[in-house]
Amino acid sequence: MSSMTAHNTETVTQSSEDHTLSLPIRAQDLADLLEAQLIGNPDLPLSNIGSIEDGCPETLTFIRSQNFATHWPDSKCRVALVSQGIDVPGHDPDTRALIIVKDADEALVMILNAVNPKRKRPPAGIHPSAVIDPTATIDPTAAIGPGCSIGARASIGARAVLMPNVTIGANASIGQQTILEPGVVIEDRCSVGDRCHFGANCVVGTDGFGFLPPTDDRPAIKVPQIGIVEIGNDVEMGACVTVDRAKLGATTIGDRTKIDNQVHVAHNCVIGTDTLICGRTTLGGSVTIGDFAMIGGAVVLNDQSSVGKHARVAGGAVILDSVPDGETYAGIPGMPARQALLNYASFRELSTFSRQVEKRLKKLEAAQQHNNQHDA
Amino acid sequence: MSSMTAHNTETVTQSSEDHTLSLPIRAQDLADLLEAQLIGNPDLPLSNIGSIEDGCPETLTFIRSQNFATHWPDSKCRVALVSQGIDVPGHDPDTRALIIVKDADEALVMILNAVNPKRKRPPAGIHPSAVIDPTATIDPTAAIGPGCSIGARASIGARAVLMPNVTIGANASIGQQTILEPGVVIEDRCSVGDRCHFGANCVVGTDGFGFLPPTDDRPAIKVPQIGIVEIGNDVEMGACVTVDRAKLGATTIGDRTKIDNQVHVAHNCVIGTDTLICGRTTLGGSVTIGDFAMIGGAVVLNDQSSVGKHARVAGGAVILDSVPDGETYAGIPGMPARQALLNYASFRELSTFSRQVEKRLKKLEAAQQHNNQHDA
Amino acid sequence: MSSMTAHNTETVTQSSEDHTLSLPIRAQDLADLLEAQLIGNPDLPLSNIGSIEDGCPETLTFIRSQNFATHWPDSKCRVALVSQGIDVPGHDPDTRALIIVKDADEALVMILNAVNPKRKRPPAGIHPSAVIDPTATIDPTAAIGPGCSIGARASIGARAVLMPNVTIGANASIGQQTILEPGVVIEDRCSVGDRCHFGANCVVGTDGFGFLPPTDDRPAIKVPQIGIVEIGNDVEMGACVTVDRAKLGATTIGDRTKIDNQVHVAHNCVIGTDTLICGRTTLGGSVTIGDFAMIGGAVVLNDQSSVGKHARVAGGAVILDSVPDGETYAGIPGMPARQALLNYASFRELSTFSRQVEKRLKKLEAAQQHNNQHDA
Repeated sequence: MSSMTAHNTETVTQSSEDHTLSLPIRAQDLADLLEAQLIGNPDLPLSNIGSIEDGCPETLTFIRSQNFATHWPDSKCRVALVSQGIDVPGHDPDTRALIIVKDADEALVMILNAVNPKRKRPPAGIHPSAVIDPTATIDPTAAIGPGCSIGARASIGARAVLMPNVTIGANASIGQQTILEPGVVIEDRCSVGDRCHFGANCVVGTDGFGFLPPTDDRPAIKVPQIGIVEIGNDVEMGACVTVDRAKLGATTIGDRTKIDNQVHVAHNCVIGTDTLICGRTTLGGSVTIGDFAMIGGAVVLNDQSSVGKHARVAGGAVILDSVPDGETYAGIPGMPARQALLNYASFRELSTFSRQVEKRLKKLEAAQQHNNQHDA
Repeated sequence: MSSMTAHNTETVTQSSEDHTLSLPIRAQDLADLLEAQLIGNPDLPLSNIGSIEDGCPETLTFIRSQNFATHWPDSKCRVALVSQGIDVPGHDPDTRALIIVKDADEALVMILNAVNPKRKRPPAGIHPSAVIDPTATIDPTAAIGPGCSIGARASIGARAVLMPNVTIGANASIGQQTILEPGVVIEDRCSVGDRCHFGANCVVGTDGFGFLPPTDDRPAIKVPQIGIVEIGNDVEMGACVTVDRAKLGATTIGDRTKIDNQVHVAHNCVIGTDTLICGRTTLGGSVTIGDFAMIGGAVVLNDQSSVGKHARVAGGAVILDSVPDGETYAGIPGMPARQALLNYASFRELSTFSRQVEKRLKKLEAAQQHNNQHDA
Repeated sequence: MSSMTAHNTETVTQSSEDHTLSLPIRAQDLADLLEAQLIGNPDLPLSNIGSIEDGCPETLTFIRSQNFATHWPDSKCRVALVSQGIDVPGHDPDTRALIIVKDADEALVMILNAVNPKRKRPPAGIHPSAVIDPTATIDPTAAIGPGCSIGARASIGARAVLMPNVTIGANASIGQQTILEPGVVIEDRCSVGDRCHFGANCVVGTDGFGFLPPTDDRPAIKVPQIGIVEIGNDVEMGACVTVDRAKLGATTIGDRTKIDNQVHVAHNCVIGTDTLICGRTTLGGSVTIGDFAMIGGAVVLNDQSSVGKHARVAGGAVILDSVPDGETYAGIPGMPARQALLNYASFRELSTFSRQVEKRLKKLEAAQQHNNQHDA
């Protein structure tokens, strides 16, 4: 879900108040900051962060696996974070440095957080151009940006941030420290937990797509969607995600679940805690997803289908019924990943295979024919 | 398209002015309201609505088919709407009640409408923060929310509602009682009929994706998209739906058609009346869809493809050419559903099948070989 | 990518100031305007533009290939643009007219541009309701619409147009003559080149979807996405397109690339120049696309996959690894188009094929069995 390409270095040129650690930094100083052991030259300067293939001499890189270690001798980088226990052959301590940490990925995240130029957020308080219903409850430490609208009896928690042009419906509630990017819409009666982050133009609480289909006698009849959406704490959603309210009860998204851009969550879905759902995935009506599930991009989960706890679904799969707990599914229609791999390998050859089988059968049948006559 | 899950009950706790019927209600009173016959205990209280599996004693449930009826003896619910003609075995009229209606689904819709807490809408009139071109025509009964922009010569019909931050382009027209949720954009010269409802952040009237592809001699050339979008009456669209204007003429969506979230309608599509299009479906350029068609979710309709009247397309299908009137298609590429079902069943076994066929052919060929020598 | 359907004619009824050429126009006058030769009746009036099948007597149509020419005798149209070198049989110069041009498509584009009713744009200057950070730099010739927010140290180039409710983040830059439709969001530190056009509700600069997956010991850890998005000149994007910022470095989109509605571009993608990407296509993380590539609609490009220069990908394909330069791929999984075509043709018959093969094998095996006994 996260990866590296060419041009993958970052010279951080923000003014110091933008972050808590500023580059360039001396290798030993970084090691001290991480309370980590440094093997090699302590004085090497680091001005950016990047991958072992693409870095330059002042790039801090990372060795998260034995495989990364094999690239070290040829890397232009001179300083690397190394997960302890990984053996790094061909290291020259005079000209280069290894910083040994418990987990290179987590150490890198710590550093990225430190150098991360924080997004600019509006200050606490309500921008004069925002339109707030007198019955709404806004914590004084919340920041309500320009052009926001907040409906009757809605509540906004402490240190929550609404970027410009966010709309909050009547009786909706937004938890503490939750950040809603520009253009987000949270519709009436929906609730969002604490420390959530929703990308720009997300829409939460649209009516579910429920109709009695049209007949010859009457047009389609809308089934009122009187339910809500309930979103837990620490949930992250990308841009243009849509989450429908339930027909009855609630469409629910569990704590710590992360949802990528343009995912569609239909009415009455029940998504567990700690799940990861990649970009463009479609959840039909009443889909259930278990805790700790991981779902790839552009997946289609059919109405009423389910994905079990700790289950995984490969990108592009179409799940018609259910993925058992802990299983990995792939393919169209979804099936156990190993089976899908074999079937798709056969599919790549299907036309050739069919032609050859036909040929060989004909030949055998002709010979058979000949035998019969010969026997007669 | 509409369905039930666990947690599927709704205790309606709105203040009475939010709706026209408030729960709890006595079973007989509800029957009287529906002018329906009650068989059983008239005094049972109903405080919510839910499914026959998940309800509690105060849940009103529904029996829409004989299959639902089989769950009645084991259901915790004590009161059910029953479509007339359905036989409900094991009913105890002393402790429970059946309310016999012509159609349980339609009766439920009537009740849901009655208990539905209406969305809060801005009052009639133009919010001071809205920006209206002096040449625009706004019916005095229309409600124009904060942050809306309405262009030159645009017209907004009676009792239409524009929620916050809606943008209406020049020469665009919005019909009577049409509701546009926050962030909707209707671009220049496009027209929307009466009683439509568009979800938040929908965009109608983007340029179609028309370019003369780049050559070695020159870059891509944009083909001006000078057409419009014409949307009929009673059309519903979900959130983040995009509808492109035509290159020439109009992209059209017929009366009473319902379109779910994140559907993409490319330029020059012609969608009939009374069609249902589920979430995430993609219509390429110049696709035509006949009246009363039903299209599942995440379907791809190729450029110039067509779906006939009363035809159906299963979710996830990719239609390359055309689906005849009244037919049901499924699969990739789209084919008659029955054929698709059989082919996908075979596909699930393709690798095993290929291996075994190879083995059996080899064996037959070896034996054949042996026979030939033996004959010689 | 651009096409024709029924109703495909446009009577241009704009007031003259909307465009530079107004219809009706006399055939010879149009030919003169194009500096082209007219063969036939110079006095025929043209009031609209349309296809050779659907036009009426006053429709200007076009003959871009020999195949179009075969429709000329039966067409209701009386005047056609013809690419030079195309032979048009059955032309009656007394009642009809052919206007011979170098390239009918390019001539049509020239005419469409001339008759195109220009979109209404806000005037140069900053609307009073826009909220501009004092440290932002706005060119005096730029037009900043109502409800726009522009962040600290952001810059907006000459004659750029921000339609209503656009949000520009801190340190972001927008080039000259770039047009951002309503609701577009460009997040902090992202840069957009000159003469770009982004559709309504596009979002550029969302965080990439990067997390260290949750373990039994700890929840998912967000990997800070400290990179940016860099978009070149003359780039066009449709509505509701999302482009994620890079984890490190930049997600880049090259000059003159055109991207259709609802495309999702994940973090660290590197898209070349002059590419065309159709609606609903999904780019996973770190996807690379070469110059002049053409990608169909609803395509899925897997994380780290690549599409070569001048390569093509058919609509609906799922690319797992790479498409070589100049190749055309199709299918799921993506493979050379010709191979995909053959395999899908076989797939349509797979169930029947499997059944028949089974039957023929059984018969051969039975006969074989019999032979063996007979030999014994």
